[in-house]
Amino acid sequence: MTGTADDPVAMLNAGLAQLIPVAAAMGVEFTELRPGSVRATVPFEGNGNHFGVIYAGVVFTVAEVLGGAIHFATFDASTHYPLVRGVQIEFVAPGRSRLTATASLSDEEVARIRAEAVPGAKVPFVLDAEVVGEDGTVVARTRGDYQLRPFRA
Amino acid sequence: MTGTADDPVAMLNAGLAQLIPVAAAMGVEFTELRPGSVRATVPFEGNGNHFGVIYAGVVFTVAEVLGGAIHFATFDASTHYPLVRGVQIEFVAPGRSRLTATASLSDEEVARIRAEAVPGAKVPFVLDAEVVGEDGTVVARTRGDYQLRPFRA
Repeated sequence: MTGTADDPVAMLNAGLAQLIPVAAAMGVEFTELRPGSVRATVPFEGNGNHFGVIYAGVVFTVAEVLGGAIHFATFDASTHYPLVRGVQIEFVAPGRSRLTATASLSDEEVARIRAEAVPGAKVPFVLDAEVVGEDGTVVARTRGDYQLRPFRA
Repeated sequence: MTGTADDPVAMLNAGLAQLIPVAAAMGVEFTELRPGSVRATVPFEGNGNHFGVIYAGVVFTVAEVLGGAIHFATFDASTHYPLVRGVQIEFVAPGRSRLTATASLSDEEVARIRAEAVPGAKVPFVLDAEVVGEDGTVVARTRGDYQLRPFRA
């Protein structure tokens, strides 16, 4: 582990190989973790398909991991864990470069989730993410249905 | 290449490392390729997350690759290639074993697509897939929006 509690980005990146080995193998890295706002990136190299574009499952992954990341960055990871219930992904343009996925929750939504996430409670939330290439081209948009699940029901 | 034109499953599996390296690295393998009906599988080993369940991006992938597979098995790969436009995935239960994804098109839908896939034409189709564990538990359902794209527009 190269990260510390003072550097949550380094800490989460160092742990990703244990948390989600498949995502780590793709080269997914978090680049921003702030309460209510997260960002991750994935390289082009190794992730292309036979058309020379980043494979759909990689685009899905760099966006989907933001659900766990925003939980880690925003909510109480000692009482709840995040579960993905469903994702809609729209592929807008081919990904031909490193991709960056960004997602955020409004202050009001963060406050709602925090208020509802009492011990034992399941709390649903929706996270929209946008995936862009190096030149800013939107490659994909996702809408994920997540749920905070209590460690002890 | 271990496959031949007489054994399309072996041929497509042998090519997967070149076609979609990320999917091959997960251990995705096709097990059935018939016109209008395809099936793929992915092992548990190496694909889990920190909860001990198969990561969402792997579930997505074993279902999503069926769109390309059904094209390969059913339509004319010399005139058109398949493009994924969007996917809805619903995670129904945690995947704790090898997963198998199955998808099919009705005879009527196959006939429609074949009739519309004249040179130069873009032909949309929807493919529903179901992902099950070794005990038959439904782990996920997907609905993919695909398009046959002509090699020469």
